Amino acid sequence: MKFRLCSPSYMACKDADSSVAAEGRKEEVENESIVSLSFRKDENFGEWYSEVVVNGEMIEYYDIAGCYVMRPWAISIWETMKSFLVIALLISKDFFDAEIKKMKIKNCYFPLFVSASDLQKEKDHIEGFAPEVAWVTRSGESELKLPIAIRPTSETVMYPYFSKWIRGHRDLPLRLNQWCNVVRWEFSNPTPFIRSREFLWQEGHTAFATKEEADTEVLDILELYRRIYEEFLAVPVIKGKKSEHEKFAGGLYTTTVEAFVPNTGCGVQGATSNCLGQNFSRMFEINFENEKGENVTVWQNSWAYTTRMLGLMVMVHGDDKGLVLPPKVASLQAIVIPVSYQDANTDIIFDACATTVKLLNEAGIHADADFRDNYSNGWKNSHWEMKGVPLRIEIGPEDLANNRVAVIRRDSLAKIDIPMADLVEKVKNMLHCIQQNLFDVAKQKRDSCIQVIHTWEEFVEALTKKKMVFAPWCDEEAVEKDVITRTNGSMGAAKSLCSPLDQPPIPKGTLCFASGKPAKKWTYWGRTY
Amino acid sequence: MKFRLCSPSYMACKDADSSVAAEGRKEEVENESIVSLSFRKDENFGEWYSEVVVNGEMIEYYDIAGCYVMRPWAISIWETMKSFLVIALLISKDFFDAEIKKMKIKNCYFPLFVSASDLQKEKDHIEGFAPEVAWVTRSGESELKLPIAIRPTSETVMYPYFSKWIRGHRDLPLRLNQWCNVVRWEFSNPTPFIRSREFLWQEGHTAFATKEEADTEVLDILELYRRIYEEFLAVPVIKGKKSEHEKFAGGLYTTTVEAFVPNTGCGVQGATSNCLGQNFSRMFEINFENEKGENVTVWQNSWAYTTRMLGLMVMVHGDDKGLVLPPKVASLQAIVIPVSYQDANTDIIFDACATTVKLLNEAGIHADADFRDNYSNGWKNSHWEMKGVPLRIEIGPEDLANNRVAVIRRDSLAKIDIPMADLVEKVKNMLHCIQQNLFDVAKQKRDSCIQVIHTWEEFVEALTKKKMVFAPWCDEEAVEKDVITRTNGSMGAAKSLCSPLDQPPIPKGTLCFASGKPAKKWTYWGRTY
Repeated sequence: MKFRLCSPSYMACKDADSSVAAEGRKEEVENESIVSLSFRKDENFGEWYSEVVVNGEMIEYYDIAGCYVMRPWAISIWETMKSFLVIALLISKDFFDAEIKKMKIKNCYFPLFVSASDLQKEKDHIEGFAPEVAWVTRSGESELKLPIAIRPTSETVMYPYFSKWIRGHRDLPLRLNQWCNVVRWEFSNPTPFIRSREFLWQEGHTAFATKEEADTEVLDILELYRRIYEEFLAVPVIKGKKSEHEKFAGGLYTTTVEAFVPNTGCGVQGATSNCLGQNFSRMFEINFENEKGENVTVWQNSWAYTTRMLGLMVMVHGDDKGLVLPPKVASLQAIVIPVSYQDANTDIIFDACATTVKLLNEAGIHADADFRDNYSNGWKNSHWEMKGVPLRIEIGPEDLANNRVAVIRRDSLAKIDIPMADLVEKVKNMLHCIQQNLFDVAKQKRDSCIQVIHTWEEFVEALTKKKMVFAPWCDEEAVEKDVITRTNGSMGAAKSLCSPLDQPPIPKGTLCFASGKPAKKWTYWGRTY
Repeated sequence: MKFRLCSPSYMACKDADSSVAAEGRKEEVENESIVSLSFRKDENFGEWYSEVVVNGEMIEYYDIAGCYVMRPWAISIWETMKSFLVIALLISKDFFDAEIKKMKIKNCYFPLFVSASDLQKEKDHIEGFAPEVAWVTRSGESELKLPIAIRPTSETVMYPYFSKWIRGHRDLPLRLNQWCNVVRWEFSNPTPFIRSREFLWQEGHTAFATKEEADTEVLDILELYRRIYEEFLAVPVIKGKKSEHEKFAGGLYTTTVEAFVPNTGCGVQGATSNCLGQNFSRMFEINFENEKGENVTVWQNSWAYTTRMLGLMVMVHGDDKGLVLPPKVASLQAIVIPVSYQDANTDIIFDACATTVKLLNEAGIHADADFRDNYSNGWKNSHWEMKGVPLRIEIGPEDLANNRVAVIRRDSLAKIDIPMADLVEKVKNMLHCIQQNLFDVAKQKRDSCIQVIHTWEEFVEALTKKKMVFAPWCDEEAVEKDVITRTNGSMGAAKSLCSPLDQPPIPKGTLCFASGKPAKKWTYWGRTY
C-alpha cells in the first residue's frame, strides 16, 4: 500500500501513520479539523510550503526526487498565465494586433533531444548547463551510438535552423516561441515549482538585424513579465539587470523581474529576458546579407518564464489556513456553500445557492456551489480556504429570510452581508479589491524588507535579518565572487539579485559596500532560491 | 555551412547542390518557378510527402533521426485541434457545460520521467513498450544509481496517484487529461508526424466505479475524435474496434478511428480510445469502498490523439502543388495579393487589398495580404499554393475598375470573380464549400478503395491493388498472426485495421477469408504505417 498514505484528494501528508485519521468524511470520521496545516508560515516556512502546496492540491510529490505531479488546481493557473501571454502577444484583436503583425512572434515546437555536438557549440553556455544535463544513452536494450541530451533550454536546438532560415534582411526579424518542458538535473534543494528537475515554460527566441531592435524587445518582453507578476499574480517584482556573474550562460546581458520572499529573505528570479548579443549567432553562423550586400551577423534574444511563478505566488500570498489565490488567476473565484440545519428547508437553500452561482456565472465570474452532503459546513470552509478560493459565499435560512448572502474574503477573512439585489456588483467589486489588496500587502511587506546599506558590516547584519539589501556597488565580477565566498555560511551564500533599471543617483564619492572602490550602480543583494 | 543547404523559409531540400538555384528572390534570381515539388503524389508518394511537409513549411528534418522540428504552420493547426477538444470537453458554456460538470475532466501535468519499477508493473504493457523506451542513465558526468525511463505513455506514471486519490465511491469518476510530449524510440520508417520518436499528444486517463460508465466514455471520446477528423480535418475515418493482436498493450479493448491513405494503400490509426478494464487498477491497487462498504477495483480508460493527425491531413488532401489545408484548421484562410503592373497605380490597389483584408477579418475570417515587393506575383501564387491556403484573392487594375476581386480556390484551382459588395458572404460560402468538398472528395476516394472479399486469393489480389480490404473473419488471434506471416513480403505485412462498430449482417454459413472457419465479424484489413 505504498501510496495509501492519506485521504484521497482532500489531504496528503508524508506521515503514513496519519492515514486513518486523515479521512475527511462526515459520515466516516468525526474529526473535521483535518483540513489544516501543521506548520505555521512564520515559524517554519519550508515545512509550511511543502505542506500547503500538497494540501492545497497543487502538487503531489513524485517517486523520482525533484519531480512533482502538477494537479489541475495548479495547471489551471498555468494555463491562465499562458493564455495571457498568448493573448497579449498573439491573438487579441483590440490592442496588440497591429503591433503583433510587426512582431511576428509565432509558436513552434522543436525536439526534446539535442545532440552533444550542437549542445556544446557555445562554450560559456555548455559550461553553465553541463552539470545539469540529463543524457539518454539507451533505447530498449540497445546502447545508443552517441548519448543524446535532453534540452535544458533550446538555444542550441533552434539556432542551427535560424542559420538555415535567415539569409537576407527581409527574413528578419525572426521571432519564435514554444511552450514545452525542459530538464535540469539539479541536485541542490529541490522545491516544488521553484526548483524542480523538470519544469514547464515558454521560451522565446528571436533574431534581429540590429542591436537596437534586440534591446527594445528585451524590455518589451520584460514589461510583459512584470505585468504577469504584478497585475495577475499580485506579486511585486523589480525590473533589473543581472550582474556578469549571474547573467544567462552564453548571453550578452540578462534582464530580470526579481521577486522576494520575506519569510526566507530570499530573492527569486521571476523570469528573464536575455539579449544574447552575437555570441550564439557567431557560433551557429546566423548571418544575413544586409541592404548594402554585406554579410552581417544577427543579434539575438531569448526569454522565458516558467511554472516557478506558481511557487512564488504560493510563497508570497499563502497563510496558515492554506493557499490564497489572486482572483485574476483563480479558476474558481467564488464558492457558494449552503448552510443548512436539521430543521431548515434544504431545497429552498439549495435553490438559492444554484441561483447565486448562475447569476455570477452569467456575469463572467467563475463560481460554483459545494452541494456535497457528506461533508460538514466546517469541513467545507476549511477545504476551500486551504485551496485559496478568493470568496466564500454562505447562504443559510436567516440569509434567505433577509434576502441576502454572507460573503467571506479569503485574504482578510472579513465577513460581510450583501443584499441579493447587489450580488454581482458587490462580488465583482470585492474580487477587484482582493486583487489590489494582495498586491498592496505584498508590496508593503517586500518594501519593508528592503534595506539600504553602505558598508560590509551593515550588509552582513541586514542579511542576518533576512533583508533584501540595496547597496552601491563597483560592478566588478571579482568582487561579487568575493562576496559569495565571504557569505557562504550555513544560510547559503548571498549574491547580487539585480541592478534596478530605475537607478537612484549615486552621490559623488559613494563607495562600493564590498570593495571600497568607487560605486558604479545601485544593486540588490540577497540569498536566493 | 552545414545547414545552409537551401533558401531560408521558402524552400528546403536535401540536396546541397541545389542551394544556389533555390533562392526565391525576385531581386536576386530570375528563376521564379522554384516553389514547386519535384515529385508527384501519384508517382512517388513517399518522396512527395517528404518534400511537401518541408516545402509547405510544416517541418524541418532534425539531426537526430526520427525527430522533427514543427514549424508555426504546423503548430497553429495543432493548437486549433487542441482548443477544439478543450472547448468541446471543458470550456464551451453553450452546449457541453452541463455535461462537463458531470464529466469532471481536468487538465494536469505529470512528470516526463518514470521509474523502472512503476513502468514494469503491468506485464503486457511493458512488453508492448519496452523495446521503444528511451532511458536516462546519466546527469552531467554522474551515472544515475538507477536508469530512469522517459514516458512512452503515462499509465504507469499516473496510476500510483489514482490509487492514492481514490478511496470512496464519491471520488469517482476521476477524469484527468494532459497535453504533453512522449517518446517512443522506434526504428522502423520514421515519417514526419506519422511516426516520430517524440510526438505531442493529449492523453486522457479516467477511472469509474462501473464498466458501464467506462464503456460509455470510450464511445463518447471516440465520437469526439471522429469529429476532429471528419468535421475539422476533412479526413474520413471508420469507427471500429481493434483486434486482440492490435489492441493497446495491457488494455481490455481498444476502439479506433481508422483512416486510409489511398496513394499507399495503408491504413492509419487516427486516434484510440481504450477501455483498460481492471488490468492496471489491479496492479496499481486502485480500489474504492462502494456504497455497501465493499472494497472494489475501479474500471479505467485511457484515450489519446497525437500530432499524427497533421500528417494524415497532408497525405489525404495534398496535391502536386503542395499542401491543401481545410479552412476550419487553416490559420490563414485567405491570402490577398495585389496584382500590379508597371503602369498601374499601386497605392490604390494596395489600399483595396488592405480594405479587403479588413472586411474579412471583421467578419471573423483569417485573412492577410502579401505586400512584399521583392517577389513576383507568380512566385507568390506558387508560395501560397504550396502552403495550402484555402483561398487566394487577387486584386488588379481591372478588378478595381469593375469593383470586384478574383478568388482562386486552392482545392479545385477554380477562379471566379466576386463583386466587392458580396465579398464576405461569398468568401464565407466558398470556405464552407471547400471544407465540404475536401471531405467529400476524400471520402469518395477512400470508399473507392474499399474492397469486399471472401477468399484468400481475393485478399492477396486486393492488397496488391492497395485496397482497404473488408472481409468476414473468425476473430481468432492465431489466424491474424498467420495472415501477418503469410503477407510479410517486400511491401510489409497486412494486418487487421478494425472491425467497424457498424457491422453489416453476416449471412449464415459465411466463412473466414483466412481460416475457412465460421466468420464472426466483418473486419477491415490492410498494410499500415
